[in-house]
Amino acid sequence: MYQTPFTLGLIQMKMVTGDPEANLRHACKLLEDAGKQGVQIACLPELFRSEYFCQTHDPDIFNLAETIPGPSTEALAPIAKKYDMVIVASLFEKRAPGLYHNTAVVIDADGTIADIYRKMHIPHDPLFYEKYYFTPGDTGFKAIQTKHANIGVLVCWDQWYPEGARLTALQGAQVLFYPTAIGWHPYEKAEFGESQLDAWQTAQRAHAIANGLYVAAVNRVGFEKAPGTDGLEFWGNSFVADPFGRWLAKGDDHSETLLKVTCDPGVSEQTRRWWPFLRDRRIDAYEGMTKRFGS
Amino acid sequence: MYQTPFTLGLIQMKMVTGDPEANLRHACKLLEDAGKQGVQIACLPELFRSEYFCQTHDPDIFNLAETIPGPSTEALAPIAKKYDMVIVASLFEKRAPGLYHNTAVVIDADGTIADIYRKMHIPHDPLFYEKYYFTPGDTGFKAIQTKHANIGVLVCWDQWYPEGARLTALQGAQVLFYPTAIGWHPYEKAEFGESQLDAWQTAQRAHAIANGLYVAAVNRVGFEKAPGTDGLEFWGNSFVADPFGRWLAKGDDHSETLLKVTCDPGVSEQTRRWWPFLRDRRIDAYEGMTKRFGS
Repeated sequence: MYQTPFTLGLIQMKMVTGDPEANLRHACKLLEDAGKQGVQIACLPELFRSEYFCQTHDPDIFNLAETIPGPSTEALAPIAKKYDMVIVASLFEKRAPGLYHNTAVVIDADGTIADIYRKMHIPHDPLFYEKYYFTPGDTGFKAIQTKHANIGVLVCWDQWYPEGARLTALQGAQVLFYPTAIGWHPYEKAEFGESQLDAWQTAQRAHAIANGLYVAAVNRVGFEKAPGTDGLEFWGNSFVADPFGRWLAKGDDHSETLLKVTCDPGVSEQTRRWWPFLRDRRIDAYEGMTKRFGS
Repeated sequence: MYQTPFTLGLIQMKMVTGDPEANLRHACKLLEDAGKQGVQIACLPELFRSEYFCQTHDPDIFNLAETIPGPSTEALAPIAKKYDMVIVASLFEKRAPGLYHNTAVVIDADGTIADIYRKMHIPHDPLFYEKYYFTPGDTGFKAIQTKHANIGVLVCWDQWYPEGARLTALQGAQVLFYPTAIGWHPYEKAEFGESQLDAWQTAQRAHAIANGLYVAAVNRVGFEKAPGTDGLEFWGNSFVADPFGRWLAKGDDHSETLLKVTCDPGVSEQTRRWWPFLRDRRIDAYEGMTKRFGS
């Protein structure tokens, strides 16, 4: 187990253009800034190379996908190595013709690929038509050993599932990253916007509490409108919660921000001693978790 | 599925005496008040017949245990029948000589026992020495059909486990009740009290959100001090959250209170349509939930 404190950098970012190369360059600049500030593990928002394309069903959009390793990892690896900084990057993965995933890659501090995680829970709801683009992941839930910490990476919709958080924690993760693209529909923001944001925060802070580890949610900001839609206002509010669920840092709902937070494994140790939830799990009685519904 | 709204009554109660008969009489009076006000499903705090005896290890305390059915259910059943009101009551169950449980009994609106639930997750921490008194439950997690709703009952420490909430929801529960006895250690309240209460609320509101159902936590109030201890200040704050995690009612940290809240199954239906988490569970990838740790 790693006992040394480690410093996270959450890059709350705006995708200002439809040009993936320009977004990638912008991300690299933000990562350089993070590296200069001493960040040891940096995380970008979900699918940071492009505007959130799942607002429409368009077969041409599959052209955005890339292999892993591929152009993005080649651009990011030198930055990781230069700053001795782990980078968590969410990419549109082309695995084979007609087989695509929403995949997070973890580049270790030496510039090598530590591992990938393919998003397991895929949403499909108005303007979030992800089941069209992404095959559900087959990596399972995993903790990834990096130079600076043992990290879990889950992606966006995964954040609503206590199962994903628990299974990743049980692999030894010290922090869960959630690269995210979540926002408000303009027509329902007034009525439901505040409750939606609060539910999103509450669900993830609860993962920190239930598992006694750090949680880092990294969302995009900006209004993005696909033709024929009302668009989505991505709500930012990236945050880090400690193993007790306490707020350590929080972004606003519209600004590009770097959230830099140092995490202490000792806090996790102490929290789990006070409230030793892992001790009392009834593993003899959880087989129903693999059932859809009913007895 | 029940589609008719139903009215909960959470009885945040103070155990004013070491005499179980007096506490039972007091509970009956509070239940009568709830019945007169139209409550359809009433819930008492955990182990309402006594002060929280798990502050010490004392073999004489096993004398407090009773059978189910037994004296408490015989006292409560007529009230249930009189007011056409379901009653959730947390009892110290004597199942056999030397075999005791922390058991919730659900008395249906006709006065019959609908079912019991034996607390599955048993804590054991300073002044909460429950593993000494209670054998871990063997009922599993279940939803219980009653006249007014399909209800899940879990008990106190269970509230920290997303597994218990999920498994109960998957049985069809429309609301999860958590009879509870949780409080502050005087010596740590100043430093950790607020964070502990917030974590307790957050963990349970997250169950409402993750499962799209109502959650009702029913705690005791009052300062109780066993000989040789610093005592515990039970923090009340009983509450109901809706399927979106929104607060519907909340008690303070020191008063006896009846929280009366009407729940609408239509809200659960709508919430689950907007955020259809049950649709996307990866039941093919959750087998690790039955593991203790590691791969």
